[in-house]
This record gives sequence, structure tokens and C-alpha cells, in this order.
Amino acid sequence: MISPLKIAVAGLGTVGGGVVKALTARRLDLTERAGRELDIVAVSARDANKARGFAHTNWTADPLALVKTDADVIVELIGGDEGIARQLVEAALESGKHVVTANKALLAKHGKALAVKAEKNNLQLKFEAAVAGGIPIVKALRESLISHGIHSVKGILNGTCNYILTEMEASGRSFAAVLKEAQAKGYAEADPTLDVGGGDTAHKLALLSTLAFGIAPDLGAMRVVGIEQITPADIHFASEFGFRIKLLGVSRRSHDAGQGWVIEQVVHPAMVRARSPLANVDGAANGVVVDAGEAGPYFFSGRGAGEAPTASAVVSDLVEIAQGSFTQVFGRPAARLAKLNAAGAGATQSAWYLRFEVLDAPGVLAEIAGQLSQTGVSIESMIQRGRAPSESVTIVMITHETAGAAVERALKAIAASDKVRARPCMIPMEAA
Amino acid sequence: MISPLKIAVAGLGTVGGGVVKALTARRLDLTERAGRELDIVAVSARDANKARGFAHTNWTADPLALVKTDADVIVELIGGDEGIARQLVEAALESGKHVVTANKALLAKHGKALAVKAEKNNLQLKFEAAVAGGIPIVKALRESLISHGIHSVKGILNGTCNYILTEMEASGRSFAAVLKEAQAKGYAEADPTLDVGGGDTAHKLALLSTLAFGIAPDLGAMRVVGIEQITPADIHFASEFGFRIKLLGVSRRSHDAGQGWVIEQVVHPAMVRARSPLANVDGAANGVVVDAGEAGPYFFSGRGAGEAPTASAVVSDLVEIAQGSFTQVFGRPAARLAKLNAAGAGATQSAWYLRFEVLDAPGVLAEIAGQLSQTGVSIESMIQRGRAPSESVTIVMITHETAGAAVERALKAIAASDKVRARPCMIPMEAA
Repeated sequence: MISPLKIAVAGLGTVGGGVVKALTARRLDLTERAGRELDIVAVSARDANKARGFAHTNWTADPLALVKTDADVIVELIGGDEGIARQLVEAALESGKHVVTANKALLAKHGKALAVKAEKNNLQLKFEAAVAGGIPIVKALRESLISHGIHSVKGILNGTCNYILTEMEASGRSFAAVLKEAQAKGYAEADPTLDVGGGDTAHKLALLSTLAFGIAPDLGAMRVVGIEQITPADIHFASEFGFRIKLLGVSRRSHDAGQGWVIEQVVHPAMVRARSPLANVDGAANGVVVDAGEAGPYFFSGRGAGEAPTASAVVSDLVEIAQGSFTQVFGRPAARLAKLNAAGAGATQSAWYLRFEVLDAPGVLAEIAGQLSQTGVSIESMIQRGRAPSESVTIVMITHETAGAAVERALKAIAASDKVRARPCMIPMEAA
Repeated sequence: MISPLKIAVAGLGTVGGGVVKALTARRLDLTERAGRELDIVAVSARDANKARGFAHTNWTADPLALVKTDADVIVELIGGDEGIARQLVEAALESGKHVVTANKALLAKHGKALAVKAEKNNLQLKFEAAVAGGIPIVKALRESLISHGIHSVKGILNGTCNYILTEMEASGRSFAAVLKEAQAKGYAEADPTLDVGGGDTAHKLALLSTLAFGIAPDLGAMRVVGIEQITPADIHFASEFGFRIKLLGVSRRSHDAGQGWVIEQVVHPAMVRARSPLANVDGAANGVVVDAGEAGPYFFSGRGAGEAPTASAVVSDLVEIAQGSFTQVFGRPAARLAKLNAAGAGATQSAWYLRFEVLDAPGVLAEIAGQLSQTGVSIESMIQRGRAPSESVTIVMITHETAGAAVERALKAIAASDKVRARPCMIPMEAA
């Protein structure tokens, strides 16, 4: 048997701890699978003495010192799109060490440059744990669904948002109340912005786009809307229409008469049909639908975060590196990843759910209908609910299929009216 | 760039044609992914002159002649667990050629011996297309879900059965009527036995068991029940209880006090909860749930058959061979695949749906209840439906959780009664 694969782990939080535990607990089986032993030769974490429930040796406070060890591969679990994480990954690739990372922020920002560096040096840079936890969606897009082209990728990629939306639906409580409870239970961060604002989903979506379409990861042209504005009323109306609201990352390729092939990348709360696969991804789970054209749609779901699922993704990458398997970072030569040709903002064609909070004053409905009609938005159905005294009135509409830009223009004009009490809400109805 | 991968294709039916078309249509992209060109250097099919909608060169009527070409890899799409397919795969592996196959029957019967041969000669034997068409479940079990152990794998693995059950539910028609229509449309074979009898699902399940549990494929200890006995009444009652009926292949590891770790492999129609992922796999689609213990459950679904999905699986295997990636056939050293330690027959613990067709005679219910009680089977709920004159009466029961063996003993005694007009039907209620 060939010599062990020497592994250095930077970051001993939940995921790092899970990796150490899995490599220890299933040592024999993993050695059989890899064809060699997987040895942790060094670890780095802030506190050497913290009780972690597992043994570790050769501790260093300085992650960059791991590059000086004889490790073959560095596991980067520090996080962040700059700073020490970026320095560590770059130094590792420059020192002839493979890298396994769960860092979606880093790869969404510097993925092409890092992949080019890895491939130039014949090194592996693997990141299954960066997207959808234990679901092997990176591998599926990189290695399996490659023969007939990808039309679109749609995913529930953030467990915190999905947990909050599921709880709001189950309990009828507000976003703020459910978020607070999620924070108390440790399901949401003290600063939840990156999760609930859609930023984390955006990072993951950028990587799925790269795998699906051969473009460099590009956050610049991505429209990102979080779930902060979703109300119990929206969830209730969605259910009346036979839909559920999910925060989706959507990347879609289409042909534009002027621009040729364009890619639309958007993160937003969307209405999905109640019986569709994505609608039934509940709680902290993740799910991804890949439309592989002629080869058909595929759906993947499972645990998108947490110790064991994420460690499972890291370990599978380590076993592949141990086997000496060759895979390009994003499935194609990194140097040739194309620049994103972004679809025009507001190009999304969809039916839209619109919600208005208005004063119960004469003419308000005429005003809203008039503005929508002026931008060519036509209404398929409408619900207006009775109100308690002194409350505002809620008006909900579903439009016919229209470009998002037209709806946005109308809503801007409507929001300026003194009869409208809050920013109007628009949510696309996803066909699938 | 290194020299092209030379490919010989045996069998130019639907899948073989799809492979040739995909390699041609997406030549540039696949070359970038593989790092070298993928060239078809020879093909074998019965009729050289049949119009197939694509060009092919270097035709031979004798598949075994492909072994004499300079091909690096043989794609075996002939089928069958013996005969020419087995000869071809063995000859290829003995002549230093890699093999890609969609042949589940062959691998379910001879998988260990063929894998040992491949690994001894440092050759690849790949079979993503053999299970669940385009769904990358072979790769997921072989390479991704490997760090925390597998508890069970449950799958809808035969599109023909799932199509028939879906149509029976939608239309209320009988098994025989829907089968006939499926045959007319080309969705079912003229001899449908292998599909509707569960044999095809059994072949695929044996391969999933091997990947999940490291045992040699073993059809011998598998209990296989097809869908022929399912009636519109069963489907109707399932719906009343909040379930749907699906033909499942289930492989489950459990600990037996006497035997140690045992594996239960069974193919049978099962009741699955209407909101569960497997219940929503409709028509000709396939779906698989993998319980990876601590790492959580994962669900995969998509097109399990047809030209493009199956060709997609074959092409992904070919690209990996072109890359020179190393994977063991079943993820672990084939020579060390263990002998199956089968769970005792009838050990399945489950609630059971039971249906009896009886004469409307005094004492019949007492007789049935008495037999069930004697073998320790207790009833949770019961429905007896009114009847038209001269029809038999249908009695449906759901039991509390009980071993299948106890239920079988009772049903055997009940079937012997002269008041019972047809073989009683028993269907397990799957928890997930």
C-alpha cells in the first residue's frame, strides 16, 4: 500500500471537528476506499486547550504555519472571502499542496484565479462541502450531468432561511419572531444578514452556475433579494393559490435576440407549486433541481449543513485526492472559464404575486390597476381581504406572465402614492 | 493533449444510439472536460444497414470482434446475464480494455467476479447507466456518501412499474388494462415479466446493496414481489389512508441478536406516505432515498430510462475513464466484498395493509380476526365496504407493527378458508 495521505486541518469548529471524528471513527473503511491511510498530521485553531471531544496533535495557532508542514493537503475551514482563508489557500497551492474547502464566499469571489493556480500546479482544489452540505451536487454537475447541456439550476441552498419560512408557515408567526427563536436555538447567527439577506445563497449559486455553464463565478450581475419582507399573509395567500414560498437561487441560460446566449442569476423568495419537489424541502434541508435538457430534470435533496453532512462532503473530497483521481476544479479548464454574459436586469419572464398594503380610501384600487395597466402588466386574479378598524387593507394580485422590469416600474410608481402604506411586495411564481 | 480515448460500442439500440449522438453533438465540450478526445473506433450491431439517424464506421456483426480492435474501452449495451454480453465483458477485461456497461442483470449475477478481474488488471468497470438511468446514484454511493455508513437504501428503480401504478391511480383502471396500453405505447415490453414481476428492480437493488454495504451482489436471498396483484381497490384504500403504492427495492442493515449485522433485501409494492419524496416520484421517473445515518437522509430523483438519460450516464463514465481517474468498481476492493449475511425471511417489521375478498357469509370476519389473533397480529383499523349483489365483499385492515412472517402465517391459514374468494393481499406501510 502507498504511503498515507497527510492532511492538515485549519479550523476546528463544527465541520473541522466532524472531519477529525469521521476520519478516526471510520479509519479502516476509508483506507480500503482510498487505497491508503488518511492521516491528520497537523491542526490549527484559535484555542489549543478547548474541549472538543476528540484528540488532536501538532496544534498551531497560525493557520499559515500549516503550509510549512509536510501535509499533502490543507483543509480550509476558516471561512471569509479575504484575509487568512484566502492567504492560506493561495499559499497552499503555491507550495504544492492540494486544498479542500467549504468556503463558498472565497470561491464565489476568487474561484477562477484559485482554480487556475491549482490546475497550473497540477493540484486539486475541491469544494463539495461549500454547496448544499452533504448533497453531492458539486460532483453531480462536475462529473455526471455533463453530456446534454444544462438549461437551469434552481436550489434551496440556505437551511436557515428554509427553516424560518417553514416555521412561519407552520406557526403563522412573523419573520422577526421566528428569526429570534432560531437565534436562541442556534439555527441562525447573531448577525443573520448573510443568511436571511440571500448573500450565502448567492455565493453557492455562483458556484453552481460555474459548474453548470462554464462561466467564471460572478456575483456582480446577480440580483439578490432576501426573505426579510415576507409576511405571514404572503405565506397564507401562497397556500390559497396552491403554492409555498421558498428562497431560491436560480441560474438559467436563455437565448436573447440581441445578446446571444445569456445567463440570468437571481436569488429571491419564489412561489413554488405545493406538489413540486422543491416545495417539499422542509426545515433546514436543502434541495436542488437541475434541468439537463433532453436528459431530463434531476432533483437532489438532503441535509445542507451541520457537522456530519458537511464533514461527509469534506471526507469524500479527501478520499478522491488520496486516490489520485484527476478532476478539474469546475469540470472544465479553469483558464477557459468564460466571462458571464448576464441577462438584462428584470428580464425574468414570470407570473408575479403582488401584495399591497393600502389605506381604505376611494380610488385606491383604480390607482393601482391604472399604474399596472400603463406598464402593460395584466392581472389574472385578485383577492382583497376585509380589515379590522384602523388597519390597512391588503390587496393581493397574480399577474399574467410578464417581464419583472415592467412590474418593477409599476410598483415604483404605486409606492409613491400617499394611499400606499408599505413597500409593495412582488414574488415570482416559479413554473416548476 | 494526450491521444484520444478509443471507444468501441457493442449494441446500437436506444442507449447505444444516444451515446454515439451525444459524443458527436458535444464533442468540444466533452474534450475539454476529459482532457482528450473521445473517439468511437468501432461499433457492433446486428444490422449494419438499419437507418439509425447517425453515422457509424468500422461496423462488425460480431461483438467479440471489438476486443480485437485497438479500442481502449468497450461499451457493452447488449444485455443479458450470460451469453455474448458476459463473454464480451470478460474478454475485454482479459485483453486490457476498460468496460462501461448498462447491464444490471450481468453485474447482479457476476458482479464480484468481473470486478475482481477488472481490479487485478488495473482496469475500470463502470456501470452508472445500470441503475436509475441518468440519476448519478452509483457515483453518489461509491464516492460521496461514504463517511458515516449507510443504514438503508430504498428506491423506485423501474420506470415501467411506476408508470403503470401512476396510471392506475389516475384512471382507476386495472393492472391488466394499463399494462396493455403501456405495451401499445412502447412503455412496456411484449414480455413484461422482468419489469412487472420485480426482477429488474431486484438486479438494480443488488448493485445498490453492494455499493452501500460492501457485500457481493446476491440475488439469492432477495424476496421479490411484483405489482401484478395490485388492484384499483388497493390504490384507492391507500389514498384514503394518506398513502400511495410504489414498487420499492429496499436494502436495510440491522443488528440481529443471534446473527450480528444482517442485511434485508426485498422488492415489493409498498405504501409510502403521500407527502414523502418517494410518493411524489410519478410516471416513468425513478427515485432513491439513502439513509446515511448521522449524515442524514438524501433523496435523488429523475429520469431512470430512455435514450438521453441513460446515454448521459454512459458518457459520464467514459469521460472519467478518459481522465484516468481511479475508482474501485464498487468503491471498495472487489476481492474483499463480503458474503451477504441475510436477514431471516419475514423479518421485516412493519405495519401491514391487508385486503381480503370474502363471501358475504356469517362468521367470516370472526374467522379472519381469529387467525390473525392466533399468530399475534393485532389490528389498528379496518374498513368493510358495501357490495353490489353477487359480488364478493372487500375487507381491508391495517395492522400494528408486526414481523411479516407472522402475517404470512395467518394469511396462509385464512386463504385455506372456503369463505375466502382470492389470495389475500399484504402490503407493508413504509415508515418513510
